Parts: sequence; structure tokens; C-alpha cells
Amino acid sequence: MSSLSAKPLILQIVGYQNSGKTTIAEKIIRHLTEVGYKVGSFKHHGHGGQPQLPHDKDSTRHLQAGSVAVGVAGDGMFLFHTKEEVNWFEFYQIVGVDIIIIEGYKQKHYNKIVCIRREEEVELLKQLSNIIAVFSWIPLPYQENVFPVDDIGSYCNWVTEYVRRKLNV
Amino acid sequence: MSSLSAKPLILQIVGYQNSGKTTIAEKIIRHLTEVGYKVGSFKHHGHGGQPQLPHDKDSTRHLQAGSVAVGVAGDGMFLFHTKEEVNWFEFYQIVGVDIIIIEGYKQKHYNKIVCIRREEEVELLKQLSNIIAVFSWIPLPYQENVFPVDDIGSYCNWVTEYVRRKLNV
Repeated sequence: MSSLSAKPLILQIVGYQNSGKTTIAEKIIRHLTEVGYKVGSFKHHGHGGQPQLPHDKDSTRHLQAGSVAVGVAGDGMFLFHTKEEVNWFEFYQIVGVDIIIIEGYKQKHYNKIVCIRREEEVELLKQLSNIIAVFSWIPLPYQENVFPVDDIGSYCNWVTEYVRRKLNV
Repeated sequence: MSSLSAKPLILQIVGYQNSGKTTIAEKIIRHLTEVGYKVGSFKHHGHGGQPQLPHDKDSTRHLQAGSVAVGVAGDGMFLFHTKEEVNWFEFYQIVGVDIIIIEGYKQKHYNKIVCIRREEEVELLKQLSNIIAVFSWIPLPYQENVFPVDDIGSYCNWVTEYVRRKLNV
């Protein structure tokens, strides 16, 4: 399916380490894909330092020789690395996605789902901007758009409704 | 240095396996970078199948969940993978390079440097289009723009002159 919408909707999934962000991102990506959206995703390399390069020694040699942008293609997969400062959003525009799920990057200003695992993480809800839902491992005193983290069906449906409303398709 | 030219110059380095393409690409990328050009490069994944994904398990999980485009950023490196058919050229335009060195893809129609290692590979010179130079491990009956593969200084200077003429900077 080609992209339905001209401008992709951006949705962040944030929370402390081990709060379940990647699992939730997976569930949401899978669900939105199944209902027909074209989903892209973006994450910070979570383990410090640069993302590890693919084990394609030739592209590593190109980078070490000074290439500022190396592309590698094969069998329906295109990989691109760059050391230049780029506007990551433009890459998704080339592909033409409907939605971009950003995992992490708490300080960005897009609409956010916050994952809460422990009591001491609840403070996050006061610190962050543009929170649209909370997926929580513990009971919370809030009611609107708060989902237990194991109620995957409910939160996936809620996200789908949210996306439909925003994209109008 | 920002990009000098509006449209990147594309130059291919082709030849049979083990004819020294990656080493020559490295030398040319390093030399052109040193003289001040912003160089990008592109290659076919040489070992069959898809390029191996970086060992970032989370981005692999995103792809497996259905994400058609996954970006990972960290410490000055941006990696992007997509399973969609894309125009690879647009990715280099975002970065803004002066030159794109393509390693491989014999059948593409850009101007080409051909690497010849063995006698039986000489036939390539009759089969390919847009050959601008030959880097050879063996003596050849041609004279113009034929360089011994170990005469790195000569072929790097020749490539630089070629690029200067084409880009006019």
C-alpha cells in the first residue's frame, strides 16, 4: 500500500529504561500495520555511543576512508549511514510513511505515550510536554487515557482511533 | 565543508569479484576527501542476501513488527533501513554530497572506472558502457586512461582532475 497521507503523523513512546518502550512500540507498530497504515520508526541508540555498524566490512572501509554517507543495498533492503547532521524526518518522507513512531527522545515536543513502571517514575508525567496517554505497570490516580501495560488490545485500539482521528483516514 | 555543487557527480567503480574494487574505492574516497570534496558512496551488498542489520536488537524488533523504515541515531551517526523501494539518490541529496562513488552495479549507466585483474576479464571492456578509465593489474594494449593498479598517486590525481573538470570547482 502506498502512503495514505501527505504528512506523516509523529507519535512518541517515552519512559525510563526498562519501562517496556520497545515492547509497546512493537505492539503498536504491528497493530497499525495490520489495520493498513504504513509505519516507520525511529529510536535513539540505547546503549551509548554510535549505533554499531552492520557487519559489512566494505561499507565500514568506505566510512573510514572518509565517505560521509554510505548506502548498501541488497535483496530488498536498503541501509544508509551518515555522519553528517541531517534532518531525520526527510528520510521518512522519501519512503512515504503514514506514521512515525519515535521510541525515546523524551525532550522532543511531539505527542507522547508515557510508560510508567515504578512509583518513582510518576514524576515524569509532570515533567513532559504533550502527553496523550499513559501505559502503566502500576495503578495510577489518573483516569483518562491510562491503560494497564498488559491490556494490549485496549491500548492498540485507542492508538488506532487516535491515528484515524489525526490522519482522517 | 558544506556541499560545493548542487548536483552530485556519480562515478562507478566496477569489475569482477576480487579485482580490488573496495581498495580502489577507499583510495579514491580518501583522496577526494583530502582535497576538499564531500564524498558519499554506495555499494551492493556483496555477499548475497540482505545487508546484515546492525546489532541493535531494538531496531530489528521494529522491522520485524512491520516498520517499513527504521532510523537509529547516536553519537553523530544516523542509520536508516528501509524495506520499501526507494530512489537511493535522494538520500545523498539530503546529506548534500559533491560526489557519489558507486562500487559495483556494472549494469548501471554512469561513468565507470573498470578494474581488471586477469586476462579473461578484459572482455568486460567491450561489454560495459561509459568507461572513462581502466585500473589494471596486467599490461593492456590500450593506452589512454589506463593505470597500473599499484600506481595510486597517478590514478588519484587523474580522478581528481576528472572531478574538477566535471564539477567545475
